[in-house]
Amino acid sequence: MKKTGNTVLFDAPVIIRASAAVAGQKESEGPLGERFDQVEPDAYFGEKTWEQAESAMLLRSLELACDKAGLPLERLDYLLSGDLQNQCAGAAYALRNTGRPYFGLYGACSTMAESLSLGAILLASGCAETCAALTSSHYCTAERQYRFPLSYGGVRTPTAQWTVTGAGAFILSKQGSGPHITAATTGIIVDAGVKDMTNMGAAMAPAAYDTLKKHFEDTGRGPEYYDLIVTGDLGHIGHAAVCELFQRDGVELGKRYDDCGRMIFDRERQDVHGGGSGAGCSASVLAGHLMKLMEAGELRRLLFAATGALMSPTASMQGQSIPGICHAVSIEMEDAL
Amino acid sequence: MKKTGNTVLFDAPVIIRASAAVAGQKESEGPLGERFDQVEPDAYFGEKTWEQAESAMLLRSLELACDKAGLPLERLDYLLSGDLQNQCAGAAYALRNTGRPYFGLYGACSTMAESLSLGAILLASGCAETCAALTSSHYCTAERQYRFPLSYGGVRTPTAQWTVTGAGAFILSKQGSGPHITAATTGIIVDAGVKDMTNMGAAMAPAAYDTLKKHFEDTGRGPEYYDLIVTGDLGHIGHAAVCELFQRDGVELGKRYDDCGRMIFDRERQDVHGGGSGAGCSASVLAGHLMKLMEAGELRRLLFAATGALMSPTASMQGQSIPGICHAVSIEMEDAL
Repeated sequence: MKKTGNTVLFDAPVIIRASAAVAGQKESEGPLGERFDQVEPDAYFGEKTWEQAESAMLLRSLELACDKAGLPLERLDYLLSGDLQNQCAGAAYALRNTGRPYFGLYGACSTMAESLSLGAILLASGCAETCAALTSSHYCTAERQYRFPLSYGGVRTPTAQWTVTGAGAFILSKQGSGPHITAATTGIIVDAGVKDMTNMGAAMAPAAYDTLKKHFEDTGRGPEYYDLIVTGDLGHIGHAAVCELFQRDGVELGKRYDDCGRMIFDRERQDVHGGGSGAGCSASVLAGHLMKLMEAGELRRLLFAATGALMSPTASMQGQSIPGICHAVSIEMEDAL
Repeated sequence: MKKTGNTVLFDAPVIIRASAAVAGQKESEGPLGERFDQVEPDAYFGEKTWEQAESAMLLRSLELACDKAGLPLERLDYLLSGDLQNQCAGAAYALRNTGRPYFGLYGACSTMAESLSLGAILLASGCAETCAALTSSHYCTAERQYRFPLSYGGVRTPTAQWTVTGAGAFILSKQGSGPHITAATTGIIVDAGVKDMTNMGAAMAPAAYDTLKKHFEDTGRGPEYYDLIVTGDLGHIGHAAVCELFQRDGVELGKRYDDCGRMIFDRERQDVHGGGSGAGCSASVLAGHLMKLMEAGELRRLLFAATGALMSPTASMQGQSIPGICHAVSIEMEDAL
């Protein structure tokens, strides 16, 4: 393990042995609908509340990933998780009966990359043989917590994004086969002064730009090193902002760069305005779609840069601007190393 | 670094180069009042809201710790933090202008031990030379978020605990002198079915018992190995419960075992019922009081086991029980190794 700037480079293998994505009905109707491992049409996932539904979904993604890895949950050295519910209750209730050591994380919608980064460090450091990184979001739990009661039927602004109902889980291992995590760039908190809670893409874009730029500097790689660079949930507006910020540096990201919030919904057909958002957006797109592209040989080098807005509704109501963060992990097929 | 059971043992030095504690007025009037590095009588810390006050307090603890370590903040490889505010906004707003890579954590009141554990792993793994672990709580932000508006003046039950206004920050380094972190036992989530939100000590005690027991099993050490074992914020009720759980195993913890929630306030004089609580309780007691005991040679081997309740008010209102967690770090003076 070597640290350069804000980036850790892994020389020992950190293997994504399996991943699994669970998504809701609306997500199943989008362009990636066929790519999720499981789709649940019931927003309650058989539970009594949306909050418990999110926990059920998150746990299901972990169980599916363990099945695919052929590794029982009891064998995992650590679980790394968190979610958007206050007090990260989604993850706590999902994992309370697993009996596995738990590191609770809060990275808002950047949690998938944060948990993969720390999971990779745990493995590379020698203090774990296997661990799981997982996160989720649920439209109904997020909307009522961050915005309005669903029954209020508030009109959404054109810049607003749609919280994805989805979960993604990854089993990391020192043994086995699968894509390797080869680098992790840890983000700093960037607050560009955006105060509009209905324009999260704009608030998070400067953090994404900062982390991507540092990743390129630290590794000496240019964007062209990667087959695909994806941010987490900047949506259409944030994606355009990141492109523009790099253009000012004379760097054209072009078609090599996309955003999970743009990919998961059909902009024309699904009425999601700014695109998808939520910790489960990048988690389910990575676990469901991008990992399958890698396994199929269609992607060999991926830079996954999940983005999070670290504000709270209380802070926003008190007039504070929205701090953003972005963590990036480099995922490469063995034959690309 | 060696892993045994749920415990990581550090062979390379992980040194607590400095620590600092900031506390509020009520805490300054308690038995440890003289031990904090700074006391702020103004609950607003010069800010406009209690939430921003908590951020100011947390940042101040970090600045003080950096000063004591003789290490500028810009030199820190990572910041590890989180707090009790929804979306961990206390930490995010405190650290948004530091420019340092940030791992956001959510361990509720166990955050001090969680951040020290992960910080120690980052250092021992070789991907960091220095990092900071820090957390806080504020009576006014916690009470209105978890319970009632302060102006409501609700009567507290006899089992209720008093959220500490306090912050603690630690500078970990591979170089320099100071107490060493020698082991970290990562807790599992334990839900014993307690549903009473005004009796957190009872809800968290089974998690504390589980982690302490595993620490002793994993390390082959008995309680007598340590000069002092402290849990985070179980208070009087939870402390008694842990003693009883060990007594059933035939283990008498006795005077060797205390709890930061019992230590920080005077039970008779300060009207705190069950004792102190909050992430800042164990953080400020460890940074302010226990570290100074170690430096003075009065404590050589300390087991610090911070405890957290992972429920949310939403989950509790939905009838869910309270999951608890406890992480433990072993802190020893070099001459005790």
